[in-house]
Amino acid sequence: MSAPTIPDYRHRHLLGIEGLLPHEITALLDHADRYVGNTRLPDRSQSVLYGGTVINLFFENSTRTRTSFEVAAKRLGADVINMQVASSSVSKGETLIDTAVTLNAMHPDILVIRHPESGAAALLAQKVNCAVINAGDGSHEHPTQALLDALTIRRRKGHLSGLEVAICGDVQHSRVARSNIHLLTTMGANVRVVGPRPLVPSGMRQLGVSVHYDLREGLRDADIIMMLRLQNERMSGNVLPSVREYFRFFGLDRDKLALAKPDALIMHPGPMNRGVEIDSDVADDFARSVIREQVEMGVVVRMAVLDVLCAQLRRSEGGAHGPA
Amino acid sequence: MSAPTIPDYRHRHLLGIEGLLPHEITALLDHADRYVGNTRLPDRSQSVLYGGTVINLFFENSTRTRTSFEVAAKRLGADVINMQVASSSVSKGETLIDTAVTLNAMHPDILVIRHPESGAAALLAQKVNCAVINAGDGSHEHPTQALLDALTIRRRKGHLSGLEVAICGDVQHSRVARSNIHLLTTMGANVRVVGPRPLVPSGMRQLGVSVHYDLREGLRDADIIMMLRLQNERMSGNVLPSVREYFRFFGLDRDKLALAKPDALIMHPGPMNRGVEIDSDVADDFARSVIREQVEMGVVVRMAVLDVLCAQLRRSEGGAHGPA
Amino acid sequence: MSAPTIPDYRHRHLLGIEGLLPHEITALLDHADRYVGNTRLPDRSQSVLYGGTVINLFFENSTRTRTSFEVAAKRLGADVINMQVASSSVSKGETLIDTAVTLNAMHPDILVIRHPESGAAALLAQKVNCAVINAGDGSHEHPTQALLDALTIRRRKGHLSGLEVAICGDVQHSRVARSNIHLLTTMGANVRVVGPRPLVPSGMRQLGVSVHYDLREGLRDADIIMMLRLQNERMSGNVLPSVREYFRFFGLDRDKLALAKPDALIMHPGPMNRGVEIDSDVADDFARSVIREQVEMGVVVRMAVLDVLCAQLRRSEGGAHGPA
Repeated sequence: MSAPTIPDYRHRHLLGIEGLLPHEITALLDHADRYVGNTRLPDRSQSVLYGGTVINLFFENSTRTRTSFEVAAKRLGADVINMQVASSSVSKGETLIDTAVTLNAMHPDILVIRHPESGAAALLAQKVNCAVINAGDGSHEHPTQALLDALTIRRRKGHLSGLEVAICGDVQHSRVARSNIHLLTTMGANVRVVGPRPLVPSGMRQLGVSVHYDLREGLRDADIIMMLRLQNERMSGNVLPSVREYFRFFGLDRDKLALAKPDALIMHPGPMNRGVEIDSDVADDFARSVIREQVEMGVVVRMAVLDVLCAQLRRSEGGAHGPA
Repeated sequence: MSAPTIPDYRHRHLLGIEGLLPHEITALLDHADRYVGNTRLPDRSQSVLYGGTVINLFFENSTRTRTSFEVAAKRLGADVINMQVASSSVSKGETLIDTAVTLNAMHPDILVIRHPESGAAALLAQKVNCAVINAGDGSHEHPTQALLDALTIRRRKGHLSGLEVAICGDVQHSRVARSNIHLLTTMGANVRVVGPRPLVPSGMRQLGVSVHYDLREGLRDADIIMMLRLQNERMSGNVLPSVREYFRFFGLDRDKLALAKPDALIMHPGPMNRGVEIDSDVADDFARSVIREQVEMGVVVRMAVLDVLCAQLRRSEGGAHGPA
Repeated sequence: MSAPTIPDYRHRHLLGIEGLLPHEITALLDHADRYVGNTRLPDRSQSVLYGGTVINLFFENSTRTRTSFEVAAKRLGADVINMQVASSSVSKGETLIDTAVTLNAMHPDILVIRHPESGAAALLAQKVNCAVINAGDGSHEHPTQALLDALTIRRRKGHLSGLEVAICGDVQHSRVARSNIHLLTTMGANVRVVGPRPLVPSGMRQLGVSVHYDLREGLRDADIIMMLRLQNERMSGNVLPSVREYFRFFGLDRDKLALAKPDALIMHPGPMNRGVEIDSDVADDFARSVIREQVEMGVVVRMAVLDVLCAQLRRSEGGAHGPA
C-alpha cells in the first residue's frame, strides 16, 4: 500500500471539535480509516511527517494518551520529543507562553499539548508557528478522543446519524463529553447526557442534547453507551454520595444495560474505575464492549490528524524555503 | 556484516529461564555472541525489528535495565516507547491487565515489563497478542540478566558446564539468583548459593544447588563469584545485622576472594553497594571483575532476544495479512 | 544542501569553553551557522551521527536544555536515550562513576551530562571511551550555552571582538556567566560583570573582566546585555534583599535599558523570572530581545558540537574495526 492521499484541511490547528463542519469530520475519519490494519508504513520516507518533529507537551500525567500520540507519530516517521511538565511549576499562563515560545523556536512541526486549564491549547496556538493539537485542556475539549470514538462507532454501525447516544456520568468535568457532544450532534446523532444533578452542567440543552438524571431512563433504547470516568477524589464531601452509592445509581451493570438496545455498544475513554462507573462484567463483555477498539482507533485517528496538520503546514510554508 | 540469521524459537514470550532447554539457551547465546562488537547494523532496514514497536512498561524504577533494552531495540531499528508507571497507582492486578490490554491495542511487537510482583509478566502475557519479555517480576525471574551473565562467563571461560559458581548474598529476594540458578544448572554448572540464613530461602537444594551460610566456605575454589545487591532497607529491624556487620561476614573483599580460584571471575548485576556486599578494591580489580562486560553483554543479549521473539511473532502472523 | 563538511577538532570532549582557542570557537560557530534554517537534513544517512547513540544523562531537571540536545541529535539521525536521575540517589561521586562506566559499556557515541557538582563532567570524561558534552556542571561551565549566545550575537552584530558585553545578576552561581566570560574575552569582546556584591565572586578581574555593583553603571553604552536567572530560593535569609528590592536595583526595565546603546541586544538563557531579573515589557521587546533566537541557535550549536565530537571519535577509532 502506498501512503494514503491526505485530505485538504483548512485549519492550522486541531483545538477542538466545535466549529468543524460535517465534511471535515468525515474527511478525517475516512483518512484514519485507511490506516486501520496498516499503521506500519511500507516506506516511511514517503510520509509527510518523515523527519519532522512532534513535541508532546504534557502538563498533566497521561501515559495512555501520550503513548498513543507517540506511537502514531513514530509510525509516520517523525522524531518525537516528550516533555512531562509538573503543572505546579507552570501555574502562571505567562510561563506556559514562555514554554511554548521556547519550544516553537526549536522548529517543531506539531505541538501536542495537554493542560489542566481550559483554553490553554488555544492560547498556545496564538504564539507559535507550528501546528497545535489539543490533547485535552481542562474541562474544555479533547478532540482526538471524540474522533476515535466516532470512528469506532462508524466502523461498527456504519454511520453516525440517527444513532441514539447516551453519554453518562461526570459530564460536568468531562472534556471527552464536550468534544463528543459537538461531534455527534454535528454528524446528526441524537445525544442524551445522563448523570447525577451535581455532575451535569447547566446549558446542556442549548448544545442540542437531552438531559437525564436517571441512568435507567437515559439508557432506554440507546444504540451507544459512553461511560465517563469518575474522578474519585470528587466523591468526598457532601456533594456526592459514596462510591458504593454512585455505582448503585450511575454505574453500568448488566441489569441497567438490559434497557439499552440489544446490540448497544459500550464505550469508555479509559482508564476505567471498575466497580465505580462500570461493572467489570460489562466492561469485559466483548460482544458489546468496544473499549479495546477505541484504543486501537486512537492510534489511527492520531496518525490521520498528524498527517493533515503537517500537510497543511507544509502547504502554508510554500515552496519558497522548503524545510526549515 | 549482513544481519545475523535468527535462530528458531518455539516460544512466544521470554518469561523466565525455567523450562528452557539447553539447546535453546545455547542458540540464544550464540546469536547474541554474533552481535558483540557489531551492535551498529550496517543496514537497519534488514532487521526484523525495523519499524516495529517496543514498549518498555516499567512499574519499578530501573534506568539501567530500561536503558539497556532501549539501546538494544533502537539499534535494531525499532520505535521504542517508554512507560514509567508508579507502582502505587496500579497496585491491583486488574489494573495491570487493563494497562496491558490498552497497550496491546496499539499493536506493539514487544512488551518489555518490569513489575514488583512475581508472576506479573506471565499474567500479562496471557492477555496480549504481542511478545512479552520479563525484565524482572518481583522475586521470580529476570531472564535476560541470566543470559547476559552466561554469555559473559562463556566468553571468558569458553563453556558453562562443570564450572563452580557461587551466588552470594540476598538470595531470598533475588530474581537474578533464581534465573541464574535455572540457567546454570540447566547448562551443567555446579551452583552454590551463599548467604546469611534469613536471606537464603528454603527449598534451594531441590533446585539442584548446594547451600552455604558462610561466605568463606562458599567461595572455596569457585570459578565464578556472583555477588547480589543487598537492599539496604532490609537491614533494619532485628532480622539482620548492621551494614558494617554484613560487610564483615558477607561482603566480598580481597581476603575472602583469596579462597576462590586464582582466575575466578567477579560478577555483580549492578548497581553495586560498594562497601556493603562488595569492596571497591575488588569491584575495580579489572583483571577479574567482569562487571563492565556484563553491561556490554546486556545490550547484545537483549538484541538477540528481541530478534528471536519478533521473528517468531512474524512467523505466527503468517503471510496472510502482513504487518498490522 | 548536502551535509556540511565538519571542521577538525583536536579534543575528545566539550567540557568547557576555557582553553579553547579563538580559531576553534570560530570553527564551531561557522559550522553551526550553516545549519541555521537547515536543521532538517535532506538525507540523514549522510550524517556522521546516523545510527549513533546519544545518551542524555541529567542529574538536574532541565527540560529545556535536554529537549534542545534531543532535537539536535535526532535531526542528525542519532538514537537518543534520556536518563533523568534524581540527584539524591547519586550524591556520591563514586556512584556517578559507576553510572558512567555502566553507560559507557553500552557503547554510546556521545554522553551529554548535566550535574549539580562542578567538575562532574570532567570526572566522568576520564572514565569513558565516548565523547562527553558538559551540559552544565554546578557553577562551573555550560559551554553550549556560551556558544549559542555567541552565535546569536555574531549573527546580529557581525562580530564579537570589541563589543561591550554586560553580564548581569547572579554571577556567583552562574555557569552560564563563566562560560560566556571565557568565550567572549577569548574572542576579544570587553566584558563587564554586574551584580549585587554577594552575587559577584571575587577573582573576576583576573578573568579579564570589569566589575560593577550598580546595574545602571554597568549598562552604560553596552552593546549586549546578558541577564542571568536569579534562583529565587537564594533570596531568603538576610544576605539578599527581597525580590521586589532585587528587581528595583538589578532587574532590567525600560528605564535602565535606556542607558545601554540604542541597538543593544537583550539576552537571557531562560527560563526567565519575569518581574525579578527582567521586566516583561523588556523581555518581549522583539526589536532588541533576542531570547527566542538564543533558543533557535541552541539547536544548531548543539548539532554542530555533536557533529565535531562524533567525527573526532570516528577518526580516533580509525578504520581498523569500524562501528562498534
